[in-house]
Amino acid sequence: MELLKKRILEEGKVSGEEILRVDSFLNHQMDIGLFQEIGREFHRRFSGKQVTKILTIEASGIGIAAIAALYFQVPVLFAKKTQSRNLDKETYKSSVYSFTKQTTYEIQVSKAYLGPEDHVLILDDFLANGQAVLGLMDIVRQAGATVEGVGIVIEKGFQDGGEKIRRQNVQLESLAVVDRFKDGKIRFLDAVRQTDGSQNTTQE
Amino acid sequence: MELLKKRILEEGKVSGEEILRVDSFLNHQMDIGLFQEIGREFHRRFSGKQVTKILTIEASGIGIAAIAALYFQVPVLFAKKTQSRNLDKETYKSSVYSFTKQTTYEIQVSKAYLGPEDHVLILDDFLANGQAVLGLMDIVRQAGATVEGVGIVIEKGFQDGGEKIRRQNVQLESLAVVDRFKDGKIRFLDAVRQTDGSQNTTQE
Repeated sequence: MELLKKRILEEGKVSGEEILRVDSFLNHQMDIGLFQEIGREFHRRFSGKQVTKILTIEASGIGIAAIAALYFQVPVLFAKKTQSRNLDKETYKSSVYSFTKQTTYEIQVSKAYLGPEDHVLILDDFLANGQAVLGLMDIVRQAGATVEGVGIVIEKGFQDGGEKIRRQNVQLESLAVVDRFKDGKIRFLDAVRQTDGSQNTTQE
Repeated sequence: MELLKKRILEEGKVSGEEILRVDSFLNHQMDIGLFQEIGREFHRRFSGKQVTKILTIEASGIGIAAIAALYFQVPVLFAKKTQSRNLDKETYKSSVYSFTKQTTYEIQVSKAYLGPEDHVLILDDFLANGQAVLGLMDIVRQAGATVEGVGIVIEKGFQDGGEKIRRQNVQLESLAVVDRFKDGKIRFLDAVRQTDGSQNTTQE
């Protein structure tokens, strides 16, 4: 998605070889016009899928999922990372290991809002080691629901989250895939292997 | 806002005298169609204001703010509750006391995205003791920006957050104001004193 890549190049801030900050438009300040383009693009890429619910995780996935839902016309459900007295006691739970923080946290979704009839699109802002998305996929499967696909705004192509998800024969669509940052420069991996073995050479 | 009140009556779950759970449509599962009506209503109520930015707090304010931003056509900024390596080091900070959890947490907003030129609308899902909103107002003032108003989806009229905010001569618009829950029943306070001393008898 060229518009997104342009913004990443213009505004992304690189620290070391692995950290990319895009808080001017994606995960602190949110450019809702760009989010609409992102939502439209997810809808285009998953147009063959029958989606009944979008699932994301707090906090920075919520804005993207909410705007994308305008195009899919389905409810959004966001997994909570902490115990909350505002949730039903009956929840699906999964443990997520954070490589960054080297701790494990629990995510949960109320059983009331996810069931065998659901076809779920998982959306998130970043994909690195894939632990959060795998936790969400685990919850969808606990519910007996179907994972229709995973949509990511920025995938770190040099970490193995993408490979882990594709290995499970799930359609993964990352709107921008970045390579490890060398000399503070951002490069995109344009051709990413798809689940079906074809090359994704989509430029827009 | 009658549509919202109807949903609260139909789906809200009351525990004791103070807890109202609306996780089927507001802060766990999000009904984006309803969020559009909420966003449109906030835009109507703050139509006299020149808003340049919407400010909210993670996590459950984000969806509401993102959809409301479609009508205001401004960026959304969400305060973070935890330290994040994805934030600039230069941040505005404020301490928020949680009566529920009896702990104080810090919220922060990057200095890069809020300045004296900004006219800020603060949005959140719930208003009870008002500590989170007061923390956001503190951050706006640290930035030298102007608080144009505070929009809340559900205010607990029996707690003093609303009074604290109105006392500062800030336009507070709560789309539904609930009374303390007696016998598990939900009642709305229809007439809420406005900043200007008039009565809010808006039914829609």
